[in-house]
Amino acid sequence: MMTFQLHPHLQQDTVLIGKFALSQVLLMNDSQYPWCILVPQRAGLTEIYQLNQKDREQLQEESCFLAQQLATLYQADKMNIAAIGNLVAQLHIHHVVRYQTDKAWPAPVWGKFTAVPYSAEELAIQRQAVQAVLGDLLVARSQD
Amino acid sequence: MMTFQLHPHLQQDTVLIGKFALSQVLLMNDSQYPWCILVPQRAGLTEIYQLNQKDREQLQEESCFLAQQLATLYQADKMNIAAIGNLVAQLHIHHVVRYQTDKAWPAPVWGKFTAVPYSAEELAIQRQAVQAVLGDLLVARSQD
Repeated sequence: MMTFQLHPHLQQDTVLIGKFALSQVLLMNDSQYPWCILVPQRAGLTEIYQLNQKDREQLQEESCFLAQQLATLYQADKMNIAAIGNLVAQLHIHHVVRYQTDKAWPAPVWGKFTAVPYSAEELAIQRQAVQAVLGDLLVARSQD
Repeated sequence: MMTFQLHPHLQQDTVLIGKFALSQVLLMNDSQYPWCILVPQRAGLTEIYQLNQKDREQLQEESCFLAQQLATLYQADKMNIAAIGNLVAQLHIHHVVRYQTDKAWPAPVWGKFTAVPYSAEELAIQRQAVQAVLGDLLVARSQD
């Protein structure tokens, strides 16, 4: 039985918002788009279909809740939800807030532009804002 | 109450494989990658979270079944599953079979290269192959 460990690349590119029952909620450190990632805490998975039935339903609920809260908080024109994993195979699901005026629109954001990190202050502000709207489903939240 | 109608752009770019209980299953007419699209037959939706609870679970099951069957049929290195909708807002979920040797790898396929349509013969072969592995969940299948 393997223990779940967040992939080092995901750890490096994000900060932890908190944890839902199944997934870690990460904030991408890219100021170009509000962008969160769900990582189901199950070891060794690369595809959504590898989750059992209960986890699939839980992931769907966590994903829908996250997407709706981000869309409302950031007044998205469109949410982009994707499980890609060509570079980091560990199962993770992107939730990207898109605007018709953003830099990459209408192209997808992945592989388009190099990330532009937030300032430390702005990163803390974004994290707190997202934590606040996810409160209902968070079973743990990052304090640092 | 609006009636569901497939967006003309999706109709133009794909052929119908058949119908699951919730979604139409479309085959992208792009010979560069095995690529199917699920379109939940609910009018006026643009985001997964707009589906009710029952439809969300059904979509997750249809998506997982489709992804797993395509991964097996085409011996995928990775499945790319995404709801983007920046160009066609009607809710639709991409299921793209990816190989480390494909033209776009590791970039996502969307907006990368212009589609290269199948020949009529190859399109019929692909459609039948996908229909065959989706049999268990198809409630209707395209005959033309």
